[in-house]
Amino acid sequence: MRADVPPTHPDFLIVMNVQQSASVHDIMATLGRRARAAAHGLGLAGSEQKNAALRAMAQALCGNIPAILAENVEDMKAAQAGGAAASYLDRLRLDEGRVKAIGAGLEMIADLPDPVGRVMDAWERPNGLRIERVRTPLGVIGVIFESRPNVTADAGGLCLKAGNAVILRTGSDAMRSAMAIHECMVKGLKEAGLPEDAIQLVPVKDREAVGEMLKGLDGNLDVIVPRGGKSLVARVQEEARVPVFAHLEGIVHVYVHAKADLEKAKEIVRNAKMRRTGICGAAETLLIDKAVADTFAPALVKMLLDEHCAVRGDAAIQAVDTRVTPASDEDWSTEYLDAIISAKIIDGLDAAITHIERYGSHHTDCIITEDAAAAETFLREVDSAIVLHNASTQFADGGEFGFGAEIGIATGRMHARGPVGVEQLTSFKYKVHGNGQVRP
Amino acid sequence: MRADVPPTHPDFLIVMNVQQSASVHDIMATLGRRARAAAHGLGLAGSEQKNAALRAMAQALCGNIPAILAENVEDMKAAQAGGAAASYLDRLRLDEGRVKAIGAGLEMIADLPDPVGRVMDAWERPNGLRIERVRTPLGVIGVIFESRPNVTADAGGLCLKAGNAVILRTGSDAMRSAMAIHECMVKGLKEAGLPEDAIQLVPVKDREAVGEMLKGLDGNLDVIVPRGGKSLVARVQEEARVPVFAHLEGIVHVYVHAKADLEKAKEIVRNAKMRRTGICGAAETLLIDKAVADTFAPALVKMLLDEHCAVRGDAAIQAVDTRVTPASDEDWSTEYLDAIISAKIIDGLDAAITHIERYGSHHTDCIITEDAAAAETFLREVDSAIVLHNASTQFADGGEFGFGAEIGIATGRMHARGPVGVEQLTSFKYKVHGNGQVRP
Repeated sequence: MRADVPPTHPDFLIVMNVQQSASVHDIMATLGRRARAAAHGLGLAGSEQKNAALRAMAQALCGNIPAILAENVEDMKAAQAGGAAASYLDRLRLDEGRVKAIGAGLEMIADLPDPVGRVMDAWERPNGLRIERVRTPLGVIGVIFESRPNVTADAGGLCLKAGNAVILRTGSDAMRSAMAIHECMVKGLKEAGLPEDAIQLVPVKDREAVGEMLKGLDGNLDVIVPRGGKSLVARVQEEARVPVFAHLEGIVHVYVHAKADLEKAKEIVRNAKMRRTGICGAAETLLIDKAVADTFAPALVKMLLDEHCAVRGDAAIQAVDTRVTPASDEDWSTEYLDAIISAKIIDGLDAAITHIERYGSHHTDCIITEDAAAAETFLREVDSAIVLHNASTQFADGGEFGFGAEIGIATGRMHARGPVGVEQLTSFKYKVHGNGQVRP
Repeated sequence: MRADVPPTHPDFLIVMNVQQSASVHDIMATLGRRARAAAHGLGLAGSEQKNAALRAMAQALCGNIPAILAENVEDMKAAQAGGAAASYLDRLRLDEGRVKAIGAGLEMIADLPDPVGRVMDAWERPNGLRIERVRTPLGVIGVIFESRPNVTADAGGLCLKAGNAVILRTGSDAMRSAMAIHECMVKGLKEAGLPEDAIQLVPVKDREAVGEMLKGLDGNLDVIVPRGGKSLVARVQEEARVPVFAHLEGIVHVYVHAKADLEKAKEIVRNAKMRRTGICGAAETLLIDKAVADTFAPALVKMLLDEHCAVRGDAAIQAVDTRVTPASDEDWSTEYLDAIISAKIIDGLDAAITHIERYGSHHTDCIITEDAAAAETFLREVDSAIVLHNASTQFADGGEFGFGAEIGIATGRMHARGPVGVEQLTSFKYKVHGNGQVRP
């Protein structure tokens, strides 16, 4: 298949030094080889050099706002002509403030501590061997995203900070914006003397490019991070032959225990559901303990309804208020990402844990209680990446965890789980220091 | 395909409660579902209960030696009749001492600290949230091995200790021995009140069973550990749709730097190559720095030859001794696992690192030097799971690292790297303790 070259950049493939007639497979293989080669040097780059690149990128972005916005306008026009929804267009849209915020994000990443080389553990063996476990970069990271142009910079910057090369694949609607931002990233890399191929943007729109990434680019891709909606994540999780850091959905529960404080419960439930309804840490199901249902259910349900949240409930919840609609079995496993909540009366801690085990997505779940033992049982037994006691589920975020920034949240059990920050984008090795030891 | 039922256990599938006519796919799917169900309870089991099970298994093994050896004799007879090599038969063979050693291994695992629930990190956020990162089990582990019956107990015990369910797939030649050992493991689980399905042995010999495991048993397998030769590991790495902890080969280098101490170099090279030649941490290539080649090359090469190690060298190494044979380019990327070494004069630290990068397998590599800066450069730049300074490469072992025991050594960069001990068989989650915090 001929590669679909972005129209305003006819010589992009020439810059890449591949034939315009090259197949998508060949183009992607080239990106993979270059990323691997760049990763080698990048892994050994010092913090100052990486931070200098990040700051130079931020400067380049802020110095090229009109050019970036001009490309973004073209993307927006095409998307509008294609009939994109308003929310989609809002994600795609850039303005001066948003570009500056992208630059500020890169500067913030520069300010984060460098994880590479950090000693995670160190111990001495009886024979005198000193063993250190030391963070190293992961290698080459592939990021597949949709229409948010800022991901080009955010993900590229985080991967660079952890010493990784990155291959960025933007949704085709954001291609011009992403290319304009990417140009600034490359400028920063060059200024700091780092390999240009450290941050590459897939230069073709064909969906085949995604397929090539999922196959792993001949071993030149170590991990894939999908950033986008459920269908993208589902495809990546289903097809990828390399590890994936992702969550498919956040079916997030708040369980109000028999020993909960009602005022605390109201504040937490309100925030967990309504602060922002479209993020993965937003609550989707409210479980109210039977023991306190008589007082708590009316208070919580009315509070939610008054906040303009639709409530879908079981029979007992429906009895609380005529505005409540019946919940179907499907509701218990639905991520609304909207001002809708499913609600249910539940008979005790074990039943709550069982419900979450059955319907949840192992992302983030919360118990509200003044009973420390019940809280500990919940935190121990609920098998989710993040389990909270008496705090809003909307804290499920790398920034809120103190990671500075995150590339996403993972619900897989391998390597990274929960918020994926710069530290989770590293591997490690063992350094063993001896003075002539041989093994008996 | 009809399942190939081991002849002495005709009712194995009946015990499993599946039809004798069940397909391998169905049998394996059943194992997966049972493992997942068992994993849930197992993850919450306390250390004492798990340790009681491990000790009861050891007792059951030591109390059933004649029965186990009788099954092993049948395996041995069949393998001999099939023309198996002596080294193969030795791996398959059990005797009273070996069974007792297997039991002692399980007791040793019982004595290890329990990783599950251990707080890896804890910090407090400015808003008062206390965040803990706590070890949890991984889930369900698949172990695919060949003819060593002890792996049934070793791998089963390690997975159990970390709170994981395990599905064990033995090479068909060791099926009777593995079943006899597995019976003792199940006895131990029962005695301790743990789910029997925590440790399952694949009851059919079809190779199709391995294929089913590599596909992940409908999401019921979280990681696969292959234990065996290169062809098994290669197949697993190539085909597995779930993460794999493994190393394909250990092309292990010892680089004798310009500032090396000759006596130290002789002892380390001797041990690294000759202590045991068949293990993955055995040295395969010797790199001698040009600056000291005149004295070091004769001393080291003659020492190796006198130890009955064949030496394959470049021109300069060949000039040292007539017993040296020429090394081909293939030799630099060959894992001999035998009393053979490839040897080369190399021009400085950077050239040594470049050689290792090109021909190595990212398993274990060593520098011998009295120059601390050179050592630090080597340890930092050589991208291997284990990098050593002035110590034998045969320390590449979980036991020698102080992990107590290992299920193998991994060269992948994700999750586990280097020796895979009980700690590397865990995941983690975040426990967040609040007192009513909501996100602004």
